Amino acid sequence: MSSVSQLKPFLEPKSIAVVGANPNSGEKAFNVVENLANCGYRGKVYPVNPNYTEILGKKCYASVREIPGDVDLAIIVTPRKVVPQIVSQCGEKGIKAAIVVGQGFADAADEEGKRLQQELIETARKSKVRILGPNTVGSANAFIDFTTSFLKQTDIRKLPVGVVCQSGLFFGTVGRLRLLGKGLDLGNSCDIDVAEAMEHFADDPQVKVIVLHIEGIRGDGQRFREAAQRVVKKKPVLALKTGRSERSAKAAQSHTGSLVGKDEAWDAVFKQSGIIRADDIDDLADLVRAFSYLPPMKGRRIGVVTASGGIGIMTLDACAKHNLEVAELTPETKRRLNAMSPTWYRAGNPLDIWPLIINSSRPFGETLRTAMTEVLGDPRIDAIVVFAGAWFQGFKPHITDVMKETADAFPDKPIAWCPYDGWLFDIRSKDLQDVLEDTGRAAVFSIPDDAVRALSRLADYSEFRNR
Amino acid sequence: MSSVSQLKPFLEPKSIAVVGANPNSGEKAFNVVENLANCGYRGKVYPVNPNYTEILGKKCYASVREIPGDVDLAIIVTPRKVVPQIVSQCGEKGIKAAIVVGQGFADAADEEGKRLQQELIETARKSKVRILGPNTVGSANAFIDFTTSFLKQTDIRKLPVGVVCQSGLFFGTVGRLRLLGKGLDLGNSCDIDVAEAMEHFADDPQVKVIVLHIEGIRGDGQRFREAAQRVVKKKPVLALKTGRSERSAKAAQSHTGSLVGKDEAWDAVFKQSGIIRADDIDDLADLVRAFSYLPPMKGRRIGVVTASGGIGIMTLDACAKHNLEVAELTPETKRRLNAMSPTWYRAGNPLDIWPLIINSSRPFGETLRTAMTEVLGDPRIDAIVVFAGAWFQGFKPHITDVMKETADAFPDKPIAWCPYDGWLFDIRSKDLQDVLEDTGRAAVFSIPDDAVRALSRLADYSEFRNR
Repeated sequence: MSSVSQLKPFLEPKSIAVVGANPNSGEKAFNVVENLANCGYRGKVYPVNPNYTEILGKKCYASVREIPGDVDLAIIVTPRKVVPQIVSQCGEKGIKAAIVVGQGFADAADEEGKRLQQELIETARKSKVRILGPNTVGSANAFIDFTTSFLKQTDIRKLPVGVVCQSGLFFGTVGRLRLLGKGLDLGNSCDIDVAEAMEHFADDPQVKVIVLHIEGIRGDGQRFREAAQRVVKKKPVLALKTGRSERSAKAAQSHTGSLVGKDEAWDAVFKQSGIIRADDIDDLADLVRAFSYLPPMKGRRIGVVTASGGIGIMTLDACAKHNLEVAELTPETKRRLNAMSPTWYRAGNPLDIWPLIINSSRPFGETLRTAMTEVLGDPRIDAIVVFAGAWFQGFKPHITDVMKETADAFPDKPIAWCPYDGWLFDIRSKDLQDVLEDTGRAAVFSIPDDAVRALSRLADYSEFRNR
Repeated sequence: MSSVSQLKPFLEPKSIAVVGANPNSGEKAFNVVENLANCGYRGKVYPVNPNYTEILGKKCYASVREIPGDVDLAIIVTPRKVVPQIVSQCGEKGIKAAIVVGQGFADAADEEGKRLQQELIETARKSKVRILGPNTVGSANAFIDFTTSFLKQTDIRKLPVGVVCQSGLFFGTVGRLRLLGKGLDLGNSCDIDVAEAMEHFADDPQVKVIVLHIEGIRGDGQRFREAAQRVVKKKPVLALKTGRSERSAKAAQSHTGSLVGKDEAWDAVFKQSGIIRADDIDDLADLVRAFSYLPPMKGRRIGVVTASGGIGIMTLDACAKHNLEVAELTPETKRRLNAMSPTWYRAGNPLDIWPLIINSSRPFGETLRTAMTEVLGDPRIDAIVVFAGAWFQGFKPHITDVMKETADAFPDKPIAWCPYDGWLFDIRSKDLQDVLEDTGRAAVFSIPDDAVRALSRLADYSEFRNR
């Protein structure tokens, strides 16, 4: 598909021109040239600005036409009024991809902005330059240490996630969400749209999960629907669709100049095409976690292994709410677990591990491992939710090792871990989360309600694929 | 009310007997005597155990009857079968309050457990000893550095919150929730129940907000309903009622031996009495935050000040969902904000501060302060949600100072701050949260959806009180 390959320069550029580059340095300079160096980008970077001959030690060119070598991508950070003219020069230079960072186009309150966006589109078509934006932070690719963001980029994780968004937000860390893998901020999306970006990631072998943040799309949505149906057959697509109310849809229109349909229509499109809809940013982060780290759910039967009876009850509530079944364990499993329990405790699902721990002289982690292994090994169970404290890390075997080894022993059954802090030692679950998730073998959630919701969506996707 | 004052020894004891104390030390010893010393408790502590003459440097007594001085509270950590006999001895010694930590009573699967709980109740009545538990971690009071927990207690904050729960969970840190102020874990609640505990905190001048975690209550709920109606008139009551489904209600019964009514009946009771119901633990944590740190909402009109247009849209969505109004600003406010904006930006609500920032040479924090002040000062606005990065702290004026000073200037209007990480500097919003919330002048949330939900509940309570 030729339209797909056209996005490659935005995500894998070997050479970049920064048009409107400035010579300032430091946190407040918002200097793209400096940020490219800081993030570790190893391609060629050409600053362009007629007012300077050198910027941050690099030769500065008066125009893109004067750059000697090939240029894959132009990042345009000039004021809005000169943008069409620069795009035209990019075309003359043979640059096929340009990111227009600036605001004040279709997103602007004035007529001049709308006129400039129209002029930009026409110039781009004539010049055969594809445009990302305007009103965008651009693109990012953790696998080549690359981001066009004008703000310092921290901590993009090399995960198999392709993000398509309409806000620079997704290039930072908001709530539980941080940028993963590869990202395209469509901004006003005057040229490259959600459908095209989604199809690009569908064919990218480094991307396993696609994330969409949509404020709105142009046209009647037919193009989006068709792309969605093709893409979901290849990879899971998670979507945060905002602008749900009439009021916010209107605001979305002025934010990115998008057209927005009724929320019920979006719901129907998502359901029909098998796209998983997130409720909010934190929900989206949990979904990314589940779909990136966990194997598919083969059914909806959950085992609960918990160091708190109270949490067991809450997990039951969450499973009822999200249509998962807390299954009865087989008599064999129960018999083996009861043999480890004090006489007054009858093992079941949820399984409270605290009675097992106080009844045993074995290391805490071994008791946890046995409990997890028994429940995961039960043929009536498709996935487990584990509630156990970060303090388990203070004993041997460490809980992160127990989790990883157990996940390796049951590669077909998702394990969702909800840790908690305090009680013993000063071990923070936040730190264990990174240790464990870096192994790619289990996902970590804030509370069981979040874990259960994410597992339920994982099951939804399996069911959709198996239809 | 004499019944209320009977709970004082559980929360403000001057002297404690630990019955069944052990001489072991360290993280894994679960030694209550050691934990009392570690948490900084300054009252008298008497270890009781016939097998030792000294425990951790303290004289150890064979029975509570041999302790020379007065004892306010007994913490009983013995196996279940000797508990009734020890309670009887507490009565003889004149101890009026006892915490029964052990499991295996009404929570047990065996008949012996149920029989023992009945014997415990009868003995306690006869001996005039009030019982907290069994199956409890007991009580805690941050204001006197006191907790009976058998696990190491970290980081109880001195906040005006009284927690009544049926799980030791609430003495740790789960999701966004950590123990605040004072806590009573009712466990099986064989004697002291939710109604009595709630009424105690209603009369405690150090408690401003009451938190309930309820799995179930005994009887027909009449006693709870009457207490709730009295208490909500004095203080806000936040409740996490679990055991919502038939299945989880049954599990709750075996966890704490509670009787549980239908979830719809609980919803009706909460609504009628003005108790604010939380959806899950993280929601509860957000509500505690809002009700502890923020002034009452005088209406439902929200101003949104955001460094991201995309977040502005999401906040509008959340307000629509939670019945808050994102109000039109007055023409005067808009005129002043437009004067600070680039020509292509038209100031409104949500107010995107990024155009204001790039249009100004003033320090970032000053622009943020002006934006917040304009929106808060608008007579059409009752509260604001602010989305601004933790990186603002890297510039002067620091964002925590801007937040605090602005809150001081508008003491009657709640400010909810949603920070985010990354972009500039390595400042983590988690750390700023503590700095800011310790000033007691603004509440910090993960994402605007959470802030909006909590503000909506704050408005619900104001409306209930003003009925």
